[in-house]
Amino acid sequence: MLLPEPLRSWDESFDVVVIGAGFAGLRAAIEAAESRVAVLVLEKMPAPGGNSIISDGSVAAAGSALQAKHGIDDSPELMFRDMLAAGQGLNHPQLAQTVAEASASAVQWTVDRLGVVYQDKVLQFGGHSVPRTLATPKLSGAAIFRPLLARALELGIELRNRTFLEALATDPSGSVRGVVVREGYRHPEPASGTPRTIRSRGAVVLASGGFGNDVGFRSAQDPRLSAAVDSTNAKGATAEALQAAMAVGAQSVHLSHIQLGPWASPDEPGNGTGPVFATYVAFPYGILVDPATGERFVNEMADRKTRADAILRVGHPCIGIADSVGLARSGQRIDACIRRGVVRPFDSVEELVLAYEMPPAALGGTLDRFNRSIAVGRDADLGKPILDDAEPICHPPYYAMRHWPKVHYTMGGVRIDTNARVIGAEERPIGGLFAAGEVTGGVHGACRLGSVSITECLVFGRIAGLGAARSVHG
Amino acid sequence: MLLPEPLRSWDESFDVVVIGAGFAGLRAAIEAAESRVAVLVLEKMPAPGGNSIISDGSVAAAGSALQAKHGIDDSPELMFRDMLAAGQGLNHPQLAQTVAEASASAVQWTVDRLGVVYQDKVLQFGGHSVPRTLATPKLSGAAIFRPLLARALELGIELRNRTFLEALATDPSGSVRGVVVREGYRHPEPASGTPRTIRSRGAVVLASGGFGNDVGFRSAQDPRLSAAVDSTNAKGATAEALQAAMAVGAQSVHLSHIQLGPWASPDEPGNGTGPVFATYVAFPYGILVDPATGERFVNEMADRKTRADAILRVGHPCIGIADSVGLARSGQRIDACIRRGVVRPFDSVEELVLAYEMPPAALGGTLDRFNRSIAVGRDADLGKPILDDAEPICHPPYYAMRHWPKVHYTMGGVRIDTNARVIGAEERPIGGLFAAGEVTGGVHGACRLGSVSITECLVFGRIAGLGAARSVHG
Repeated sequence: MLLPEPLRSWDESFDVVVIGAGFAGLRAAIEAAESRVAVLVLEKMPAPGGNSIISDGSVAAAGSALQAKHGIDDSPELMFRDMLAAGQGLNHPQLAQTVAEASASAVQWTVDRLGVVYQDKVLQFGGHSVPRTLATPKLSGAAIFRPLLARALELGIELRNRTFLEALATDPSGSVRGVVVREGYRHPEPASGTPRTIRSRGAVVLASGGFGNDVGFRSAQDPRLSAAVDSTNAKGATAEALQAAMAVGAQSVHLSHIQLGPWASPDEPGNGTGPVFATYVAFPYGILVDPATGERFVNEMADRKTRADAILRVGHPCIGIADSVGLARSGQRIDACIRRGVVRPFDSVEELVLAYEMPPAALGGTLDRFNRSIAVGRDADLGKPILDDAEPICHPPYYAMRHWPKVHYTMGGVRIDTNARVIGAEERPIGGLFAAGEVTGGVHGACRLGSVSITECLVFGRIAGLGAARSVHG
Repeated sequence: MLLPEPLRSWDESFDVVVIGAGFAGLRAAIEAAESRVAVLVLEKMPAPGGNSIISDGSVAAAGSALQAKHGIDDSPELMFRDMLAAGQGLNHPQLAQTVAEASASAVQWTVDRLGVVYQDKVLQFGGHSVPRTLATPKLSGAAIFRPLLARALELGIELRNRTFLEALATDPSGSVRGVVVREGYRHPEPASGTPRTIRSRGAVVLASGGFGNDVGFRSAQDPRLSAAVDSTNAKGATAEALQAAMAVGAQSVHLSHIQLGPWASPDEPGNGTGPVFATYVAFPYGILVDPATGERFVNEMADRKTRADAILRVGHPCIGIADSVGLARSGQRIDACIRRGVVRPFDSVEELVLAYEMPPAALGGTLDRFNRSIAVGRDADLGKPILDDAEPICHPPYYAMRHWPKVHYTMGGVRIDTNARVIGAEERPIGGLFAAGEVTGGVHGACRLGSVSITECLVFGRIAGLGAARSVHG
């Protein structure tokens, strides 16, 4: 929307206004504040953190000190190529390159400046050519987020919760000069809170996250993703700030590329406990069947998109099945899954069949057939790789979990350049507007690799904060 | 942009203003004019027709009179399911359903009201479960477009060429009230022509087509599609009108889903002659190899997207190869391809290898291996179906063509509802704005089936024209 007229009617002024208090927003705010400008961070929810604080805190970095310590040979070029392979070539190459090149220094910054402690091993996540993922001791994003927030507050950055971005205010040339917000906002009530205008003398940094929990916005892009599909995201993962940027002419890219997790259970909210059983036990050692037919329908080790799409095509939750030997081989504990009723143990195939109302003969046939595939070391039906230590599924107790995909990550968002400037009409940057993190599109193309999201937030958060601080004096 | 003030400053007024003179635009204009409202059609190019007139004029219809005559059992429900399967579930179901349900009557209208003549056979295109495609005698869109244009002019519709849509003019409520155009526009010079404002008393119908030839816009969504990738489209297939709609708040969907043709030759511009050789000879009876390795790399009969992506990953043009028996079995003539130098004949494998600088031993091995696959009736390497009448590739002359994908169709565009109203903020229709045809997104999801595009233009063109005419009196 256009500026309030006259200009003196702004309620207050800051140098830099950051929208969103997650990894990207706080990293941007810290970088700006360290350049001695006055920074305000606005968060629409009652507390900061969003998806960042509930993430698993795993961060990909190419050429990290930890990789060197463990003798792992890696390079930003290799990470870049992995990102493009996963992204099906849709990635904006320069954005992906920017993330890969700055990944090691971004992670080192969390160690040196925030005191973040990582496990003394480097993990290899799916789609990465080498081990390059650092993980916090308890696999918790909070272990990075808390010191990040502490550092921001220590620098005198002002953080206001329950403050909703209603619109970006532009001058007649189209440059962003401030924001119109609602203070005292109560998510998700659209009209709640009191309007207030805040001038940004330098720039606004959009770091509002993805829209995985915005049913209206996401289902316009992918009509399968109605309210019947849950999300692993925090409640505040909605699209209003992204739409506010589009309303002032920000280009959007890749909005219809929405990542679904095939490892999710409909019997618990959010990310939950089920993914551990699915990812480490049922998919590698067991099978996934359609309870209506008792038959397998997808390679259980195919990529996330293939598996999630296949379950959605079946049209109802599918059953992941493993046995006690598979569980033992996985080295995982699933006590929490069982306590919550997400994974159920059965003493026999007959009990399992009854519980999910499956055709008994068909499931028996499916197990026999798959067990023969294990015996010959080759799954001729669906091409799933048979692990060396896999054994036929015939050792009770059996374990089973219902699977129904959940929205996990939104690859699309506003278009940015390598300086984190938001691109508008005629491919020109919009004055006074930067963006970083999941609200942007292009870094990951059609599909994000695990553990690159936090890296992206740290890399582009820093770039956006630096750019915004510079525009105060520019 | 906001209305010129005061309102009386409009240069002229019509009831309905249609942007784009292709199938969708003219179908809309005719429907509106038959409701006795004054219709103006604006076309930015020097002549009407765009992609419509250069299309192959094939139209899918479920439950057509011609299907009945030939005893083909079909239904809108089956066509709908085919569209959703191709679209990977991203289709807006109600839009796809609208097209499928009205498909037969839309085609019948071209027969009854325009006198269009179709071949007396029903074709089965890839991805369709049954034969349902009608084709004009010479496979030319002009055979439908010319009588459509004649009917429009007969109805007194005014058509202005070289008239570029600069902006949609909105009132303070955000409804579209007219257009700002440039008359005497010379494509693609952005500042050419003279500004003029035209009021739409009822509505504006956006029917400006896709953006297959807009390198900047398409490569923002898919960075592989730089100027190095050609297009089968007409020169005017650019995104300005789509962007004008987005500038007044139109939602966009599926912009990054851009269809590439793997059957295209870089040795001729546009659609050209090569696709006949590729589609009917080399893909089904021959092989596609990377000239750098002399090896196959993709199932030559996989879907369009799989094959085009695979060639782009190779990174340079690949070589489609067949022999004289394959050509004979195809029943096709490739004289035009050879005359243009797009397909080259060779008396021996040695000559072919030399011409494309391939490693001779590798290509020999690839041919031997594939010929053994033909002998056993199964392609264990890449899973290509072996045709019953296929024979080993060893009968000179050999024929070869270079392959490099071209942009063929853009699935994404403005979001519409089943009444062809353009959807804006908060999922509400934008007043005074309808859209139809390739400028809209959602009908086809991630992938359009062949011959459904003209159907869509006729179906939603009619709906948009009707809605626009009604808004004159509303």
